[in-house]
Amino acid sequence: MKLNIALLAGDGIGPEVIDQAVKVCNAVAKKFDHEINWTSALTGACAIDAVGEPYPDSTHEVCMAADAILFGAIGDPKYDNDPKAPIRPEQGLLKMRKKLGLFANVRPTFTFPSLIDNSPLKRERIEGTDLIILRELTGGIYFGERGRKDNGNTAFDTCTYTRDEIIRLAKLGFEMAMTRSKKLCCVDKANVLESSRLWRETVQDMEKDYPEVTVSYEFVDAVAMRLVQWPSTYDVMITENLFGDILTDEASVISGSMGLMPSASIGLHTSLFEPIHGSYPQAAGKDIANPLATVLSAAMMFEDAFGLKDEAELIREVVNKSLAEGIVTEDLSGKNKAYKTSEVGDWLAKNI
Amino acid sequence: MKLNIALLAGDGIGPEVIDQAVKVCNAVAKKFDHEINWTSALTGACAIDAVGEPYPDSTHEVCMAADAILFGAIGDPKYDNDPKAPIRPEQGLLKMRKKLGLFANVRPTFTFPSLIDNSPLKRERIEGTDLIILRELTGGIYFGERGRKDNGNTAFDTCTYTRDEIIRLAKLGFEMAMTRSKKLCCVDKANVLESSRLWRETVQDMEKDYPEVTVSYEFVDAVAMRLVQWPSTYDVMITENLFGDILTDEASVISGSMGLMPSASIGLHTSLFEPIHGSYPQAAGKDIANPLATVLSAAMMFEDAFGLKDEAELIREVVNKSLAEGIVTEDLSGKNKAYKTSEVGDWLAKNI
Ligand SMILES: CC(C)[C@H](C(=O)O)[C@@H](O)C(=O)O
Ligand SMILES: CC(C)[C@H](C(=O)O)[C@@H](O)C(=O)O
Repeated sequence: MKLNIALLAGDGIGPEVIDQAVKVCNAVAKKFDHEINWTSALTGACAIDAVGEPYPDSTHEVCMAADAILFGAIGDPKYDNDPKAPIRPEQGLLKMRKKLGLFANVRPTFTFPSLIDNSPLKRERIEGTDLIILRELTGGIYFGERGRKDNGNTAFDTCTYTRDEIIRLAKLGFEMAMTRSKKLCCVDKANVLESSRLWRETVQDMEKDYPEVTVSYEFVDAVAMRLVQWPSTYDVMITENLFGDILTDEASVISGSMGLMPSASIGLHTSLFEPIHGSYPQAAGKDIANPLATVLSAAMMFEDAFGLKDEAELIREVVNKSLAEGIVTEDLSGKNKAYKTSEVGDWLAKNI
Repeated sequence: MKLNIALLAGDGIGPEVIDQAVKVCNAVAKKFDHEINWTSALTGACAIDAVGEPYPDSTHEVCMAADAILFGAIGDPKYDNDPKAPIRPEQGLLKMRKKLGLFANVRPTFTFPSLIDNSPLKRERIEGTDLIILRELTGGIYFGERGRKDNGNTAFDTCTYTRDEIIRLAKLGFEMAMTRSKKLCCVDKANVLESSRLWRETVQDMEKDYPEVTVSYEFVDAVAMRLVQWPSTYDVMITENLFGDILTDEASVISGSMGLMPSASIGLHTSLFEPIHGSYPQAAGKDIANPLATVLSAAMMFEDAFGLKDEAELIREVVNKSLAEGIVTEDLSGKNKAYKTSEVGDWLAKNI
């Protein structure tokens, strides 16, 4: 098979972890006789530095021409704490999501038995956790009208949702629930927000099309509690953009394996795969960052973008093997030897 | 001293836990020679049932005439999952907050050494946790313009903040930080929201008036993570209404003492004290609910509303004693004897 993949390494540790995922993908391609056509493009702070724009048109063209996008991380401290900076890397992210129509962010949270004790939560609370949060990614308060009034002394943001946006996201959620335990939780704030009431009523209307799926409706504040208390009671969750931003990050720390969690963003034109961790600028260039989340994002890419399940499974197996054998970076090595980012990548590629 | 207190017991377990707090307050008043004038009023589902309105004008008058309000809990399952119901108990809550100008919700999270192992988090993660979240309570998306367009197929909510609203809340935060460890964290989403940028720039402007306070700015998604990972690194946090709703609930489960956490809402006209737990309808009428959060809310009332520190301290001491001696309800009794709600109240009052 011919796989056209756009490669957006981004900032900070992005390039280093992406390099390892590329090694692994190339090894997989060789083994299964695929041909990968990689096209690199700039995004994030490095794109601002190079061309004054965090998601340049040239990058958008590369993405539109690709079957899938493998993404590293973006963000640079020089743009932090300056909400008034005229151009910021995050704007590139939001522009990319919108222009590529990446309407659904898929964030699994699961546990690795060997890492479970890294969690801030007690083992008995997280054992068996295997949940997916589906976050709406191109609507809501992220993209609504915003501005200032009253000489800059009043600021406003608008959260808007249409029924169609909700249906599109919820449909994915129902379908995902059908392939899993047939449990779907819709997270909203319908006791306060009109947009949440539209979410709830739209999902309620869709229930009849999926009679086997048991749907629950929970308020976002209650979910923020229960995610910490009983994460393993959740399965597929759907929610709007801002709630998803908060809850996916909260969920990411419960498994103790945050440095390993992959994600996918499903789009109208293409889809994008990226680790959930950030650009971790303090570690950039040191060859110490953990590449496994990016490698596992590549596994998601094989499966979800290309339907190549065996390839995905093989990557996951090799990752598990590296964990079992302690071929890991310093964040996971404990008192044992810490391998370099590039050494972990080489080991994985060799073992494919 | 003469203390005029409005008593809003509310729904579910509200009346039962309020009864115990009243016993304790009366015992304190007797001991310290105060005269408490209690005035009860209806609110919540029971007010809808009685007069068709969750926060009736008559209740508002009682509150306005009082020096402080002691509040139980509201909410009834018959109004749940029906976001389209024309009248809901929560509307009473929001109306009350707005009409009384309760602009700041003060939510401490601290640990009780004897309860620390109830936490879903590991002991070493939470030991020493003692933080306060100051949630803005009368602005933001809770009170902005909202509605439908396009034949009901589009819904919108507006988040609006003025500089003055932010200053009012932040001032409390800075002052509170001055009495504690001089650390203040402003939680926002300034990388996306214009209202958050106004928050950040307003708080930045105020820094010069409190040169001793070290202020940090963190994004709400990062805070949702760090609260679970390292709660003890936080001290005073300030945030807007919706973020505060989510984060205060998340914070409430980390200490393992959720059933004990009190809260205060500081207002323009008066202030209100309530347990953070809900109306827990499944337990209503069974004399099993834990009254300690309400009793500790009464302690906050003595201290914050009336400046009666010794009275507050005595209540806290007696609560600690009840914990140490195992005079607790079934949620805390483990394998030991579970006391009834009313028995715990009687014991506390007797020991004042
Ligand atoms: C950087 C920021 C704009 C972004 C978001 O809020 O969506 C990030 O937190 C994320 O979750 O991808
Ligand atoms: C009941 C609801 C409207 C309310 C809120 O969201 O403010 C509650 O969750 C709270 O935190 O007091």
